[in-house]
Amino acid sequence: MKEPRVTLAGERADARANRRRLLDAAVAVFAERGADAEVREIAERAGLAVGTVYNHFPSKEDLLAAVVEEAASQFEAALQGALEEPDEVEALRMFVRRGLRVAERFGSVMAAALEGQVPLARAAAYRARRVVLKRRIVELIQRGIDTGRFWPGVDAEVVAAMLTGVLSPWTYPELRRSRTPEQITAALVAALLYGLERRRAPASPPLRQAPPDAG
Amino acid sequence: MKEPRVTLAGERADARANRRRLLDAAVAVFAERGADAEVREIAERAGLAVGTVYNHFPSKEDLLAAVVEEAASQFEAALQGALEEPDEVEALRMFVRRGLRVAERFGSVMAAALEGQVPLARAAAYRARRVVLKRRIVELIQRGIDTGRFWPGVDAEVVAAMLTGVLSPWTYPELRRSRTPEQITAALVAALLYGLERRRAPASPPLRQAPPDAG
Repeated sequence: MKEPRVTLAGERADARANRRRLLDAAVAVFAERGADAEVREIAERAGLAVGTVYNHFPSKEDLLAAVVEEAASQFEAALQGALEEPDEVEALRMFVRRGLRVAERFGSVMAAALEGQVPLARAAAYRARRVVLKRRIVELIQRGIDTGRFWPGVDAEVVAAMLTGVLSPWTYPELRRSRTPEQITAALVAALLYGLERRRAPASPPLRQAPPDAG
Repeated sequence: MKEPRVTLAGERADARANRRRLLDAAVAVFAERGADAEVREIAERAGLAVGTVYNHFPSKEDLLAAVVEEAASQFEAALQGALEEPDEVEALRMFVRRGLRVAERFGSVMAAALEGQVPLARAAAYRARRVVLKRRIVELIQRGIDTGRFWPGVDAEVVAAMLTGVLSPWTYPELRRSRTPEQITAALVAALLYGLERRRAPASPPLRQAPPDAG
C-alpha cells in the first residue's frame, strides 16, 4: 500500500480549508443556538473531529472571537468596494447593500458573542476593528461633503453612528423580522440621504410621495 | 435612654433612600472602573455597610442589572416628555436632547455591563425594555408621518434604529470625546431631519450653507 505523499504546502492548505469549514460551521451553529452552542456540535457540522477544532481554536471563546473577526473583515471588504465608487451617493448605497449582507450572515451570532453569555476574550481587539471600520465610513461621508455631494454642515461621525446603528447585531435581526434586506437598504439609504422632514408643506397632504431627487 | 420610635413606613423610606444612594454610587463607580468594580467600593462610595448592599442586591450582577433598569426608566421618561410635545420636529429634538443626557450619565456603565465582563443575569429583561423604548420612538416618528410633518415614505423603524444607534452605550461615549452634548444633539437632529444630500446643486458650491428650513 502506497501512502499519499504529504507535503508541507499540502498540509497548510488542508489546515486552511479546515479552518474555513470550522468558521462557517461556527457561524451557522452559533446563529442557531446562541453562544451556548457546544464545540462538539460545531465539529459535527463541519464534519471534523473535536480534536481538530481544538487544534485551530484552543477554546470556544477563541472560536467565537474568530467569528467576530471574520465579520469585521467582511464589513471592511464591503466598505473597501464602496470607496472605489466615484459618486458618494452610489458608494453609500453600495456599502449599505453589501454591509447588510454581512449583517445578514453574522447578525445573530455576533449578538450572541457580544451579549456576555460567553465573555469575549478579545473584546478589545474587536472594538479596535469597529473603530477602524467606523473611521472609514466617516471618510466616505467626508469625501461626499468635500465634493459637494452632501451638505457641508453634516457631522460625518454622527451620520456614521446612525448608519452602523442599523447594522448592529442587536438592531439588524429585529428589523429583518418584518422586512427584506432590499427593503431595509432602500429605507436606510432614503433616510440617510433625504431625512425625515417634508420640505414644502403641500396644499393638501398626498398619501404617498417620493422624496425629491429620489433615484 | 429613649430609643427613637421606628415605624414601618420610616423603615421603608430609609430602605428606599439607601437603594437610591446605592444605585447612584453604583453608576458612578461602574462608570469609573468598569464592571470589575467591587461591591466594597460601591458601599464605600454610598457611605453604607457592605451588608446593606447585599440586603438590597444579593450579587454584583443584580446591582449591575438595577443600573441598566434605571437607565431604561430614564430613557422612557425622556421619551414620555417628548411625546407630550404637539409638534413632532420639536418632540424629536426634545427626545434627543433628553435622551443624550441619559446616555451621558449611563453610557459607560452600560457598555461595561453589556460587554460581557460580567454576565448580565437579566439580559432578557433589559432587551424587553429596549424593545418597548424603540416601539415608542417608532410611535413618535409614525405620528409625524401621519400628521404630514415627515415624509410619507419614511420607514419609522429604520429611523428609530438610526437614532438609538447614536445613543448606544458603545457609540455615544466615542462621540463625546470630541463633542459637547449640545453639538451631538444639533448634528443628530439635523441629520435625522434633513439627511445628507444637497438638494439643488448650486452653480458654484458654497463652503457653508444651512439646510433648507433649518430651525
